[in-house]
Amino acid sequence: MLSTSKIQYIQSLTRKKFRQKYNKFVIEGEKMAIEVLQNQRIKIESVYALDSWIETNQALLKLHLDKVISIKEKELQKISSLTTANKVLLIAENIDNKLDNQLLTDDLSLYLNEIQDPGNMGTILRIADWFGISQVFYSKGCVEIYSPKVIQASMGAFLRVSFMEYELADLKSFAPKLPVYGTVLGGDNIFQTPIGKPAMIVVGNEGKGINADLDGLLTHKIMIPAHSPNGAESLNAAVATGIVCALFRNL
Amino acid sequence: MLSTSKIQYIQSLTRKKFRQKYNKFVIEGEKMAIEVLQNQRIKIESVYALDSWIETNQALLKLHLDKVISIKEKELQKISSLTTANKVLLIAENIDNKLDNQLLTDDLSLYLNEIQDPGNMGTILRIADWFGISQVFYSKGCVEIYSPKVIQASMGAFLRVSFMEYELADLKSFAPKLPVYGTVLGGDNIFQTPIGKPAMIVVGNEGKGINADLDGLLTHKIMIPAHSPNGAESLNAAVATGIVCALFRNL
Repeated sequence: MLSTSKIQYIQSLTRKKFRQKYNKFVIEGEKMAIEVLQNQRIKIESVYALDSWIETNQALLKLHLDKVISIKEKELQKISSLTTANKVLLIAENIDNKLDNQLLTDDLSLYLNEIQDPGNMGTILRIADWFGISQVFYSKGCVEIYSPKVIQASMGAFLRVSFMEYELADLKSFAPKLPVYGTVLGGDNIFQTPIGKPAMIVVGNEGKGINADLDGLLTHKIMIPAHSPNGAESLNAAVATGIVCALFRNL
Repeated sequence: MLSTSKIQYIQSLTRKKFRQKYNKFVIEGEKMAIEVLQNQRIKIESVYALDSWIETNQALLKLHLDKVISIKEKELQKISSLTTANKVLLIAENIDNKLDNQLLTDDLSLYLNEIQDPGNMGTILRIADWFGISQVFYSKGCVEIYSPKVIQASMGAFLRVSFMEYELADLKSFAPKLPVYGTVLGGDNIFQTPIGKPAMIVVGNEGKGINADLDGLLTHKIMIPAHSPNGAESLNAAVATGIVCALFRNL
């Protein structure tokens, strides 16, 4: 039986304030739980799971026996933020990602400027993961990566991609020669621009695009050409990021 | 004052069953409302709006005066499916899109196979709009396009793109020589494959990919190459669609 205070503690982690206070976050669902348990980088606080799940995953849980708490379906539903709770819920410590200056200088990185939609944030981590962009930086004002919706949308990419809050200006000071590309209305057609690594790709906010403050830091302004005869609105931020990353890795 | 039965009617349109019964759907938000009012193709049943909004948009409402119903903020919140209702809510008749066989034969089209997430569906319409893909076909089992979440995520693209439910086999019988591309694990690297119009691009379900039933209808199997050293899960369906469409239009 879970104590009321334990339930309150777990529920409090749906809120940023408490995630930051405790330096912990929640991971739900079988698939992601298995990945987390296999991952060496992540420090697990507790594994709340149904008996059946514990039994099936004994081998995986061997190293975490002191952290496993058997609960009933009703209890799981109480602590879950999913509409239908999914057999297991993990609490883990925030990941301590560290800047790799060599990678910054030599490879592709992303810089997210005030991305606000959790679905977009998670999807962008998934894109970075797919295209082997192992460092994703983000500005103040981005949705927090440990928010349950970001974690769910990332499909586990948060385990494989390093994400770190930085000022773009600071990153530039670490790698002064690094080309910095931003997708901007009126930028050069990306299909007619030489692109490739090393580069920092800056992704702007869903509504406002890249903040004017960062304008001076962009070395190249690019855009994905529209073919709409009727004046299409815009591309979704994650979709645009996917297209740009695909081209940087493959053209 | 809105009558209780009117409120119930509008609220019922959040459900597919009633949208189909009445052949109507709901559009919310200022920006989309303005686009709808400017659009000649769409038949408006009613415009529920705050007095202030009606005043500001008099010119636009001139042709629809018989349909404008002034309501208070509290009433708008009652009939809105947004967390924060947004000045205006429109009810319109389902759009009667018609297959253009010439376009099917000569240009790019999309075929959506059991896309289930409303955000993905709306985002894919937006992608089609951006890349001038004016016909989007969908299979049985796709999320309904008139669902409020799809409409919102489409950012008005549903007004500019024709969407129609069809069997892929029927479309093929209308355009037997049309190349049909599907994104499939183990397909050819899309960056090393000749692509372009005319073509039908088949987009598979978020979890299962393209249904095995359609396999025999694909003339080309392609894939977006992964660059992940750590085994990335997959790309989001809308992101993959965005990348494929960008390449078909620009390579």
